[in-house]
Amino acid sequence: MAKSKLISPHGSKTLKTLLLEGKERDSELKRAETLPKVEVSSRETGDLIMLGIGGFTPLDGFMGHDDWKGVCSEMKMTNGIFWPIPITMSHDKKLDPGTEITLVSDETNEIMATMKVTESYQIDKEYECKHVFTTTDKAHPGVEMVMAQKDWNIAGPVKVLSESYFPTEFEGIYQRPAESRKIFEEKGWKTIAALQLRNPMHRSHEFLAKIAIDVCDGLYIHQLVGKLKPGDIPADVRVRCINTLVENYFVKERVVMGGYPLDMRYGGPREGLLHGVFRQNFGCTHMIIGRDHAGVGDYYGPFDAHEAYHNLWEGALECKMLPIDWTFYCHKCDGMASMKTCPHGKEDRVLLSGTALRKALSEGGDVPAEFSRKEVLDILREYYSGLKEKVEIKMHGHATGDAEKRK
Amino acid sequence: MAKSKLISPHGSKTLKTLLLEGKERDSELKRAETLPKVEVSSRETGDLIMLGIGGFTPLDGFMGHDDWKGVCSEMKMTNGIFWPIPITMSHDKKLDPGTEITLVSDETNEIMATMKVTESYQIDKEYECKHVFTTTDKAHPGVEMVMAQKDWNIAGPVKVLSESYFPTEFEGIYQRPAESRKIFEEKGWKTIAALQLRNPMHRSHEFLAKIAIDVCDGLYIHQLVGKLKPGDIPADVRVRCINTLVENYFVKERVVMGGYPLDMRYGGPREGLLHGVFRQNFGCTHMIIGRDHAGVGDYYGPFDAHEAYHNLWEGALECKMLPIDWTFYCHKCDGMASMKTCPHGKEDRVLLSGTALRKALSEGGDVPAEFSRKEVLDILREYYSGLKEKVEIKMHGHATGDAEKRK
Repeated sequence: MAKSKLISPHGSKTLKTLLLEGKERDSELKRAETLPKVEVSSRETGDLIMLGIGGFTPLDGFMGHDDWKGVCSEMKMTNGIFWPIPITMSHDKKLDPGTEITLVSDETNEIMATMKVTESYQIDKEYECKHVFTTTDKAHPGVEMVMAQKDWNIAGPVKVLSESYFPTEFEGIYQRPAESRKIFEEKGWKTIAALQLRNPMHRSHEFLAKIAIDVCDGLYIHQLVGKLKPGDIPADVRVRCINTLVENYFVKERVVMGGYPLDMRYGGPREGLLHGVFRQNFGCTHMIIGRDHAGVGDYYGPFDAHEAYHNLWEGALECKMLPIDWTFYCHKCDGMASMKTCPHGKEDRVLLSGTALRKALSEGGDVPAEFSRKEVLDILREYYSGLKEKVEIKMHGHATGDAEKRK
Repeated sequence: MAKSKLISPHGSKTLKTLLLEGKERDSELKRAETLPKVEVSSRETGDLIMLGIGGFTPLDGFMGHDDWKGVCSEMKMTNGIFWPIPITMSHDKKLDPGTEITLVSDETNEIMATMKVTESYQIDKEYECKHVFTTTDKAHPGVEMVMAQKDWNIAGPVKVLSESYFPTEFEGIYQRPAESRKIFEEKGWKTIAALQLRNPMHRSHEFLAKIAIDVCDGLYIHQLVGKLKPGDIPADVRVRCINTLVENYFVKERVVMGGYPLDMRYGGPREGLLHGVFRQNFGCTHMIIGRDHAGVGDYYGPFDAHEAYHNLWEGALECKMLPIDWTFYCHKCDGMASMKTCPHGKEDRVLLSGTALRKALSEGGDVPAEFSRKEVLDILREYYSGLKEKVEIKMHGHATGDAEKRK
């Protein structure tokens, strides 16, 4: 086999890492303490870290107006490079070009970065939402985030000073693109498929993953460890589920696991494209796109993300989609199958809605072994029973509301 | 999705079809009857038909000395185009350049083609076998064919006049490249994986095929309907097995079936490459290469054909390999799996040697449902029981030998 030469980062020969380290970081941090402080949201913090570690190569900071507009309308920055979702930062007032500021997490109060303002501009939020999310419905969590942005977008290059709590809280999972690339190189892999995960892996995900392993050199299970909407399984539980699944059902040498610090935007097709962009930066040649990729509710058709990849212009994105149809266990096939391969009927297939699954798990009902591996179900049952206890404790203390919302 | 535009034929913008039809054929056939007749073997007849229908694009006839040598030594013709196995014709004497001859099947006596001799040359057969088959052992059926060639290789462009018995005997299966391409275009497929078949499809083949369907737009089950070595399942039985399998276990719209008229050379890696070359001519973008592809006995390592594809120079072959590891049913995985995806032990896997399978089928023993579908086994059992009856009848008539050899 030819010596491993990994795919180039998106729109660049090398990773663009904006994170300072060592003495450079120390001195910039000192300077940062003297600059005016501006708070950034959780989503913006995740984006900053991705800018820092090169996950958002070739960006050098938050986008200005023209890039914002080009990205919204035609997924193209002013330099002609493909980019599917605006990476922007908002603030409650205008700042003069040339102003230097320090970006501070509104959650942890930590200094995240410094920034040299190049531009302050106002946006039509509905325009952004309509183009990016195809909806302006505030019930959509991505729309909600945009609508919650402050009045002014502030653009400019950043120097990133921290990866926040991700390296410690997600030790062994959180990974920089340079790290995943080094592992792939050492393994001699040329073709690597990325599996986007924000849910525990049931057998349908395992099946997608194994198809990818069969046709590529290896699999990168790349988990979102940023924020999710209420009701989603938290990252630590999910990580345990996936660890046990890989331990028991995968050839470990074929799998690399990593985590990235972004918050879910639930942007469906556009987010599916962003997933390909930053997976390329992490060294992947293929992005697995399954059913309702990065979707939420009924905002997107189940294969809109497939269409989005098909509709890209030639050369837009080097990382290729590995599109997989809806998958399930079929008794007549006697194994996992997809809509593309199984000719049998509904009555032969083991299908379970998310709602039915949650109900079975939290109430101790049966979940078929054809739907999920026992080892994974055990962890999920434990998590749900813990939730229930918490609800009961709270209830006795006259608290109300959904236990999951507090996660 | 972008409008379907199929892959170009190998080394050419269009299919090079050397088959004459209609009035052109009638008049050339008349002329053919007046020319000196030269017999061609079964292998050469198959090659002629492939030349005729464009399956061997961009060749225009049987190869001359320099192409023969380049193909043997570095898989490259004098025009620089990749070609992995010599396509040559032999005769017992030298013929002068410019001589026009008629090529007649030594099996059916039918006029197959006319040829204008450009060159007669002698070859070192051991040299060819060593390069192409990596062995000079006459027990290798491909070596045996080369060793059985007559003393002179005759080169020159051909005009093909017949497709022999293939269109009638394999009606509905035998197919020209223009026909498969038309079907793919009508289906709007862009990526098509070819499955080479010379055996009935057991579940391991079904699994390869379904992986290919999951990652491509469609599957071309392309069966060899030329000659096999004794003991292999004859084409008509195999076609019935595959029909019933597709009928019962595939989404029919995702599968196109076709047959091609070549004899097996059992050339392992080199034949695996030839399979990619002519599948590209039939319109396929991917060639599935499994374990011991086109192999025989112990001449080749199980993944030598994978290596052969990996070692090709850039641009040699546009049709890409879809390499798949050894596959089997695994009880712990609870489904089909491959060495790349299954971490479990031998004791969990359903593995059956060809010898054990034949024994079970001919003696009525059990074959696990995890190895082969019932519908396929029924057909094979019927075939083997027919064979047994034939042997018994022959035995009573004092015949000896292996019944299968007479097929």
